[in-house]
Amino acid sequence: MNFVSDNVTGAAPRVLEALAALGESADAAYGTDAESNAAARRIADLFEAPEAVVFLVATGTAANALALAALTPPWGAVLCHEEAHVNDDECGAPEFFTHGAKLAGIPGAAGKIDPASFRHALTRFPKAVKSVQPAVLSLSQVTEAGTLYTLAEIAALSAAAKDAGLKVHLDGARFANALVALGCTPADMSWKAGADVVTLGLTKVGGLACEAIVVFDPVLAETLPYRRKRGGHTLSKGRLLGAQANALLADGYWLDLARHANATARRLADGLAALPGVRLAWPAEANEVFPILPAAMDARLRAAGFAFLPWATGSLMPGDTIGADERLVRMVTSWATRPDTVERLLSVAAQA
Amino acid sequence: MNFVSDNVTGAAPRVLEALAALGESADAAYGTDAESNAAARRIADLFEAPEAVVFLVATGTAANALALAALTPPWGAVLCHEEAHVNDDECGAPEFFTHGAKLAGIPGAAGKIDPASFRHALTRFPKAVKSVQPAVLSLSQVTEAGTLYTLAEIAALSAAAKDAGLKVHLDGARFANALVALGCTPADMSWKAGADVVTLGLTKVGGLACEAIVVFDPVLAETLPYRRKRGGHTLSKGRLLGAQANALLADGYWLDLARHANATARRLADGLAALPGVRLAWPAEANEVFPILPAAMDARLRAAGFAFLPWATGSLMPGDTIGADERLVRMVTSWATRPDTVERLLSVAAQA
Amino acid sequence: MNFVSDNVTGAAPRVLEALAALGESADAAYGTDAESNAAARRIADLFEAPEAVVFLVATGTAANALALAALTPPWGAVLCHEEAHVNDDECGAPEFFTHGAKLAGIPGAAGKIDPASFRHALTRFPKAVKSVQPAVLSLSQVTEAGTLYTLAEIAALSAAAKDAGLKVHLDGARFANALVALGCTPADMSWKAGADVVTLGLTKVGGLACEAIVVFDPVLAETLPYRRKRGGHTLSKGRLLGAQANALLADGYWLDLARHANATARRLADGLAALPGVRLAWPAEANEVFPILPAAMDARLRAAGFAFLPWATGSLMPGDTIGADERLVRMVTSWATRPDTVERLLSVAAQA
Amino acid sequence: MNFVSDNVTGAAPRVLEALAALGESADAAYGTDAESNAAARRIADLFEAPEAVVFLVATGTAANALALAALTPPWGAVLCHEEAHVNDDECGAPEFFTHGAKLAGIPGAAGKIDPASFRHALTRFPKAVKSVQPAVLSLSQVTEAGTLYTLAEIAALSAAAKDAGLKVHLDGARFANALVALGCTPADMSWKAGADVVTLGLTKVGGLACEAIVVFDPVLAETLPYRRKRGGHTLSKGRLLGAQANALLADGYWLDLARHANATARRLADGLAALPGVRLAWPAEANEVFPILPAAMDARLRAAGFAFLPWATGSLMPGDTIGADERLVRMVTSWATRPDTVERLLSVAAQA
Repeated sequence: MNFVSDNVTGAAPRVLEALAALGESADAAYGTDAESNAAARRIADLFEAPEAVVFLVATGTAANALALAALTPPWGAVLCHEEAHVNDDECGAPEFFTHGAKLAGIPGAAGKIDPASFRHALTRFPKAVKSVQPAVLSLSQVTEAGTLYTLAEIAALSAAAKDAGLKVHLDGARFANALVALGCTPADMSWKAGADVVTLGLTKVGGLACEAIVVFDPVLAETLPYRRKRGGHTLSKGRLLGAQANALLADGYWLDLARHANATARRLADGLAALPGVRLAWPAEANEVFPILPAAMDARLRAAGFAFLPWATGSLMPGDTIGADERLVRMVTSWATRPDTVERLLSVAAQA
Repeated sequence: MNFVSDNVTGAAPRVLEALAALGESADAAYGTDAESNAAARRIADLFEAPEAVVFLVATGTAANALALAALTPPWGAVLCHEEAHVNDDECGAPEFFTHGAKLAGIPGAAGKIDPASFRHALTRFPKAVKSVQPAVLSLSQVTEAGTLYTLAEIAALSAAAKDAGLKVHLDGARFANALVALGCTPADMSWKAGADVVTLGLTKVGGLACEAIVVFDPVLAETLPYRRKRGGHTLSKGRLLGAQANALLADGYWLDLARHANATARRLADGLAALPGVRLAWPAEANEVFPILPAAMDARLRAAGFAFLPWATGSLMPGDTIGADERLVRMVTSWATRPDTVERLLSVAAQA
Repeated sequence: MNFVSDNVTGAAPRVLEALAALGESADAAYGTDAESNAAARRIADLFEAPEAVVFLVATGTAANALALAALTPPWGAVLCHEEAHVNDDECGAPEFFTHGAKLAGIPGAAGKIDPASFRHALTRFPKAVKSVQPAVLSLSQVTEAGTLYTLAEIAALSAAAKDAGLKVHLDGARFANALVALGCTPADMSWKAGADVVTLGLTKVGGLACEAIVVFDPVLAETLPYRRKRGGHTLSKGRLLGAQANALLADGYWLDLARHANATARRLADGLAALPGVRLAWPAEANEVFPILPAAMDARLRAAGFAFLPWATGSLMPGDTIGADERLVRMVTSWATRPDTVERLLSVAAQA
Repeated sequence: MNFVSDNVTGAAPRVLEALAALGESADAAYGTDAESNAAARRIADLFEAPEAVVFLVATGTAANALALAALTPPWGAVLCHEEAHVNDDECGAPEFFTHGAKLAGIPGAAGKIDPASFRHALTRFPKAVKSVQPAVLSLSQVTEAGTLYTLAEIAALSAAAKDAGLKVHLDGARFANALVALGCTPADMSWKAGADVVTLGLTKVGGLACEAIVVFDPVLAETLPYRRKRGGHTLSKGRLLGAQANALLADGYWLDLARHANATARRLADGLAALPGVRLAWPAEANEVFPILPAAMDARLRAAGFAFLPWATGSLMPGDTIGADERLVRMVTSWATRPDTVERLLSVAAQA
């Protein structure tokens, strides 16, 4: 009944089993244990990037903020969509970890930046000491609007960023959902498309608290051991993180979990869109659905016990507006969303 | 065979069971879930401090750094023992979270600050704008030398700190070990003795990754929700932390675990001290033993597979020095240390 | 011939005389000298604010950044016009001094924020820990477009800010120019209209390097002695700053200088606007003129040795655009601008 | 009558003349004006370092803090004498500008670090992520005790620092006083002895507010334009700084001023040391005298109107202590100290 986010559930069964199986045996502390080392190797393999340096941390906020801090000086600018999670939902963590870099929000429909608006944004920052200097382009895949960049779109934006001397960060809080939706490989969606650093989300897809910072060029990773420790993100019993990552990534388990979430979202999106008076603000391309509901339907669903968030945005499709008796809401599915719950929601929604 | 630290083991059985029992049911995100709320209430009760505000985080570094950031402005000084963990072992995390406050190390034998040296240290900081201003006294209980402050000693130092307008922070990474050694209550060892904020360690005693910041005066806690979020330490699935805390604190489980660790350390200390050529650098008052071994014994133990750290210190008892053929080492026991491993170590040590 | 800025000239005669008169006599260091004390009292009197606390510093960047740091926590947001100097032209100094607060730019024609867009901007920041919290409204008077807020407009914006719990900062880099243009008192344009802190610019108006931070509520000033020292902005020989301020503020000298600059700008604006093909992007309300020139006129003026800046903006009047053969430029006058230079410029501009 | 510091006087005549001569002519802003450019070239020439990059700022605190920020990451340690100005007298400015690096104070008699204690201090910081990493050795020449390192001593310490991978910073607040005392060249006392960056003090020697950061390797200077701007230390009318530097450095004027200050201090030191009951805590090697006076003499001098500071230190010569009826004080001379004032002081001191 809870469609508030994909972080409201516990962890997927194999993750809990892996944690339960952590015995009392001694291992190295501070992220150098066998589980963490194995997870790092596994992730590098998964990305077909043997040189990649991987840092496990417990939260997406930490992963994003540390990744950005590795890529920008304090007088740099991080260009991102104006509604990006790093800009709006992390209480300034990127500013904290970067020691005050500026996040420059770029508008764009459906949560996406297009190359023209990115290039225009760059003109705000002349090559003069009075101006902060653009240092990073941060893309969210899945976007805040539940949409996806195509691989070609990522590549085009990355190329424009590289031309301007910027590094590219990919906020992959829902990386797995994007991956199965696009049917591509992790390498395709990251370094092959120009990303320098990826925040690989493993919490929403089925972990309890596990994210990985994946840095493809080891030179860019050099400061991160210190930044992570200094940020209090180097767990003494690192196996907690390693075990989650290994459980999720083994045998494509994380992709199975993501496929379930995406399929459930698809059913939810299709079912809602078929109802009179309902339309989708944006195409539901991963595991998030943003329907615009008649106010009465919104109220009816809430009265029936369904939980989901009202949503505010400046990123509607061109020409679209939310009417006074309409409600834009966000519904998120996860590995744990049951199909019958979705059907129940659709059935309540359909009651006129 | 591993006496390197009490963070080299996994988690105690009931902790793993509690994690395994975390199902998929939905709950509120970002530390407002039922497990986290219950843990906060439980900790406040445990400290007989109904007004206390509790923040769970995954690492001791984060807990200490956030606690200090709540107590000092960037131009403040944190006075602590010169070998305190916050000063020597956190890569400057307190400086990072406090935005550059100064940690001022105070020397003292056996890891302890005495009130006279504390008062002397205060004189380094005149009430003038050119000087950072003393803001916090941070005490470690258990100390870095494995010793304990008596309750009267904590109270005397706290009183001196309060007289000078400072707040008092207690780094309780091994709080439970101190508690069972002193046979007092959490309240006795914290606010009743003058502490304003406690870092309550639950990882070393048997958790996987769980520490609590306990703030007795809610006014001092006001900035911490923002600081924690901004530091990336607000877990989306907070139940991970709450479940560990609840499992450990229920029915005095954490104290049982600490008693085992302390008793094992006591046996180890007594056994070693009885051997010819061995003496203890400091009394083993909790779960850490700092023997000074003949170099040959040190080598024999390592050859037999025992792991422990060589130790460097400026905090020896007055008059003591380490001879050229002696080795000061640290051996730490935990809930997982087996008595027969200790006996084996003693037996190898005794082979001349 | 140089209309690039009002900071390209040296200092006004009385300022230089005052500096030359600084003898070798001893006085207190670090801003507690007689000149600095007199300047602080003079400024408080000028603002009819006997309680005001005044800090002299050498640059406007420092004055603004320190003022903002006194008003926002690191997790706060500073709302300002999107082209405000604090946002675009100080290389992130506000972020540095505030330890990472977020500057949120608000669009608005002619460099001005209107209350509706301000209130809308506030909705971006929910009262939730995930969001930075709005803490300051920063207004520039004169604006970056050379325009002025009326006293009623400042009061309305300040009231809206206060309603939302924000403090109000006035960036008065060209405070004197605004003052003589509006014909009001410093009190009218600051605390009577709701400003909590003013950056009082004395460099552009005729000083060499002198700005004052004027804090009306002493409580808000409490951290500034430490922040100023820590920022390296407490001059040991503070008389350098005090002497400039006293020379400028005595006998209304600064207002005379500002009147000259404004009058020169008025003549320049009127003369240009009367020429065919020229229009003003915004009304020239103080000492800055933003004409939109035919490209050929722009080139002719430059060829004749006149210097001024090309200007980029997103703040044109509704409906206005710059044509392909037009150039938006900025021309700034100062106390040192000679009327005959203006006439010469107009004459070259008029040659078709 | 004022021996409190060499920053209590105004500026030397030629400096004031140079300021008075700054007319109203236009020049480039933000430190790129003719005076600043000439000063930078002059300083590079003076140091026989054509590649050196020079940054003028208004305060020694800024110069030191910026210099250190160019040399250490936030997780670095700056090793300095425990009573160094950067450690004790700048309200944590180095911590602010470095984003939280740790200043590690090293004890040593007479304000000086010896290579053995420096090497010992390095052992506190293992090459492990838990520890901040030593990045800079900061030496004060003249020291806080008014003493001087010989060139060989600077070279030995620098060599030890380089061996350990550290950069070397020289805090030359009284660089000229040291220079004339040692009779060497700026190059001898800086890069030829191993210094990477020098804070060249021009305020105490006779300026009003002018210090230069001199960076010998341009690569180390790359971040400083941004750091200076962001710190609010890039003056719009940079000529204020340039004019002071040029006036002082032309024709050896600064050295003449320093010679006067040193000679006056020498007479003061010799005169006091010849009195019964007086001894010097440390040799008076530049323009500071630290006599240990009988309490009655201290009182008599103060009653007669002489001003000087009581002094606290942990850096007395081995075996020395201050008796209960003795007073350690600091007396500083400057370019403006009149010989007859010194004689008067000595005469009052001699009255028994």
